Amino acid sequence: MTTVLPVLDLGSDLCCAPIVRDAMSAQDAANLALKFKAIGEPTRLRLLSLVAAHDGAEACVCDLTEPVNLSQGTVSHHLKVLVDAGLLTRSKRGTWSFYALVPGALDNLADILRTPAAQ
Amino acid sequence: MTTVLPVLDLGSDLCCAPIVRDAMSAQDAANLALKFKAIGEPTRLRLLSLVAAHDGAEACVCDLTEPVNLSQGTVSHHLKVLVDAGLLTRSKRGTWSFYALVPGALDNLADILRTPAAQ
Repeated sequence: MTTVLPVLDLGSDLCCAPIVRDAMSAQDAANLALKFKAIGEPTRLRLLSLVAAHDGAEACVCDLTEPVNLSQGTVSHHLKVLVDAGLLTRSKRGTWSFYALVPGALDNLADILRTPAAQ
Repeated sequence: MTTVLPVLDLGSDLCCAPIVRDAMSAQDAANLALKFKAIGEPTRLRLLSLVAAHDGAEACVCDLTEPVNLSQGTVSHHLKVLVDAGLLTRSKRGTWSFYALVPGALDNLADILRTPAAQ
């Protein structure tokens, strides 16, 4: 079985079929790997978790520097990687940037990892 | 909310609580990031998918080099990263190594990514 799946847009939240159902095309793998690489770093994983656990599932950079004990510049860099991967949104209000989870983005990754029998 | 979750073994399939339920401890984040980093690379994602889609959900290195168009040495290196991350098992039979999915490993990652409302 080496079915080639449809090539989907890089930013599509609907990419891709479950990983264990069919062999994955090179294009799908490249798109997906970007997202997993973004969360394959401890600080970014913690930042994602901190944003999600924050009141209203939205957090200001100013809320995130102390829990991870890093400078605002470093935290902003990691948050940008998560935004570029389509996992967080950024909105600017006044002097601060606020970050929130992209609805469905993590659930979509979960669906791709889940084995069909467990769904 | 900055609950510190229990620190679990690196190789435990039960690590960790869902990412969006509580802020994640530094230790949990480090353990988990290793697994996501392993699949945050297009060739490794394809190899994982190829192994899963292969008959009996097990594949020989000799089955995997052609689909990804890479040398056996490169493919073996990527497979080792997936084994070290606890996602594949390796068993040697005769002159070949066979790789299979670790039961539940991908489902465990899926559970961690899933938002509680979608469970």
